[in-house]
Amino acid sequence: MILEVAILDVKNGLEINFEKDFTLASQYISAAIGYKGHSLQKCMERSSRYILLVNWQNLDSHEVGFRKSIEYEKWKALLHKYYDPFPTVEHYETVFENNI
Amino acid sequence: MILEVAILDVKNGLEINFEKDFTLASQYISAAIGYKGHSLQKCMERSSRYILLVNWQNLDSHEVGFRKSIEYEKWKALLHKYYDPFPTVEHYETVFENNI
Repeated sequence: MILEVAILDVKNGLEINFEKDFTLASQYISAAIGYKGHSLQKCMERSSRYILLVNWQNLDSHEVGFRKSIEYEKWKALLHKYYDPFPTVEHYETVFENNI
Repeated sequence: MILEVAILDVKNGLEINFEKDFTLASQYISAAIGYKGHSLQKCMERSSRYILLVNWQNLDSHEVGFRKSIEYEKWKALLHKYYDPFPTVEHYETVFENNI
């Protein structure tokens, strides 16, 4: 399992629309093979900043399976217009974990 | 519940030492009141980058409870020497979540 991480800076004033469209778009990412859950979280220090966290089976589930799908085109059409700057996406693997 | 997020850039060549000291230091953060779990994850695109994710009961659990504790001094003594640049820490609240 890997974690996709993207810090999303949304254009000022569009936060509520973005959150609504994110909820709609979630159906497209959730349908991908190898998708293992995701969350959108809002920054407490900067009101137009969010973090997207997505669990994937492996890197290809995201970069090939999802990004080359029709669902990704629908995700993009709903969400990409909100970002400024366009976000950098990174992937992470667990080194240490303690869940209580 | 809130999520603390810090992107950690570790000095080149010190990654293995950092990971060992992080495991040691984890006992100090885990002892804090309001601590709800944490993970350290390593970036697949940049080998000296990590992300620290910590779940806290609320902002004060982190900023007052932990940061003003003796345990935080021990955490700092083990870990702060590894970072370049010194990381920015942000806190996030869930907007949307789908765990499968």
